[in-house]
Amino acid sequence: MDNRPIGIFDSGVGGLTVVKEVMKQLPNESIVYFGDTARVPYGNKSKATVTKFSAQIIKFLRTQHIKAIIIACNTVNSNCIEQLREMFGNLIIEGVVEAGVKMAVDTTKNGRIGVIGTEATIASKRYTQLINEVNPSFKVYDKACPLFVPLVEDGWIDGEVTRLVITKYLEPLTTNDIDTLILGCTHYPMLQQTIQSIVGDTIELINPANEAAYAMGELLKQRNLQAQGTATYEFYVSDHAQRMKQMAQMFLGHPIDEVTRVDIELYSEK
Amino acid sequence: MDNRPIGIFDSGVGGLTVVKEVMKQLPNESIVYFGDTARVPYGNKSKATVTKFSAQIIKFLRTQHIKAIIIACNTVNSNCIEQLREMFGNLIIEGVVEAGVKMAVDTTKNGRIGVIGTEATIASKRYTQLINEVNPSFKVYDKACPLFVPLVEDGWIDGEVTRLVITKYLEPLTTNDIDTLILGCTHYPMLQQTIQSIVGDTIELINPANEAAYAMGELLKQRNLQAQGTATYEFYVSDHAQRMKQMAQMFLGHPIDEVTRVDIELYSEK
Repeated sequence: MDNRPIGIFDSGVGGLTVVKEVMKQLPNESIVYFGDTARVPYGNKSKATVTKFSAQIIKFLRTQHIKAIIIACNTVNSNCIEQLREMFGNLIIEGVVEAGVKMAVDTTKNGRIGVIGTEATIASKRYTQLINEVNPSFKVYDKACPLFVPLVEDGWIDGEVTRLVITKYLEPLTTNDIDTLILGCTHYPMLQQTIQSIVGDTIELINPANEAAYAMGELLKQRNLQAQGTATYEFYVSDHAQRMKQMAQMFLGHPIDEVTRVDIELYSEK
Repeated sequence: MDNRPIGIFDSGVGGLTVVKEVMKQLPNESIVYFGDTARVPYGNKSKATVTKFSAQIIKFLRTQHIKAIIIACNTVNSNCIEQLREMFGNLIIEGVVEAGVKMAVDTTKNGRIGVIGTEATIASKRYTQLINEVNPSFKVYDKACPLFVPLVEDGWIDGEVTRLVITKYLEPLTTNDIDTLILGCTHYPMLQQTIQSIVGDTIELINPANEAAYAMGELLKQRNLQAQGTATYEFYVSDHAQRMKQMAQMFLGHPIDEVTRVDIELYSEK
């Protein structure tokens, strides 16, 4: 038994979709969330910058006595999860990308998988690489959808504009007859219903957060690190608390009362 | 005569629209440009964060022996130009917002001015305040347009989606009978033609970069700080150079050969 919290971090508010899944699947686990709202988005930043920012965040989370980490940010997962595991050797680090890949390869019937994400996630080819490690004959069709995050954050979840943008971005995937589509960015589950209504029921949408929460639960069980009793939830950001509070309702389904600002650049040194 | 360069900075690549105007209007002036591409965008960040980032950039630009600065970023202009002038007392700091206000109040005939910009720029009410300092009877109608920057950066300059988004965002302004519209974000001049074709010729579009370049020229003339001979242009970013190079063609109209990365967080201390 181990009541220490799970650390979950993201470049911004999107990782709350992962928090939501962990709350649902692992109701006894406490969570410390960090959103790097002062430096969001990571999606168009370099690997070196994304690695540096992520290491600062893990250094902060360690001061919060976490027992494990879920990296919610696909860009971090795609760019540097291996380096971070090397840097923080004895820490359990679970990633949404590996989880998403597992779900997708278990789901596809025709071996044609679509992946959508930020520019950095797609450019990294990490999903493709991991899918082909499982099965080299699977075909992966990927597409960066840089307008999806601003559409979600401005509340354009449905409607003519959003539907046109989705249709245009997904066209090269749907014409390639995919039967499985990985929502490779934490914001995209917010568009899940709209995307599903456009691509139709023949394409299975994969939210990697589902599998990441499940995998974390299994890992804690194996290592006898499960929590008992009442969970607590703490939310930290690198910029003002207001925006996180505003977005919580949308991403989490309920408001957050308290959000604390952290000067994340202070965690630069080991 | 003073051949030291003018420093121009922005949260990212958008400030290149200001560089373009300065190159055109002041062809002898050398320019050192800094784009904070590792921490872009500023538009949804707090005043404290934006002030801190801007101070770091000015500290860097001073190491490049600049004679004056143009702050291209509307968010910085709106949030903290006064604090920055206080912090860097003897430095000439020109802002696009003040320049845009001057142009707009000189242009309007019916005293009804529209302002569009990022969430932070609009929330600051800086344009409204400065316009009403000139003429308290002028009516200002403003609207945050958070989708415009990602649309431009993803190359959606025209087309059905962009036209629908523009129409929806501008509706509360056009129905209020504005005759002048300030493009209060460095990216928006890229949408100028599309916006003009939607709002029609009865609304004058104001690109604050035009007036900012002109005002800088006048200031240098007054203080006898004009450059002579051949100008040089240097470009710095806080993230990888590649993205700036990609965007230069679009924003500047020609490519940039050399872009240098700067570790901007090192300029934290005075």
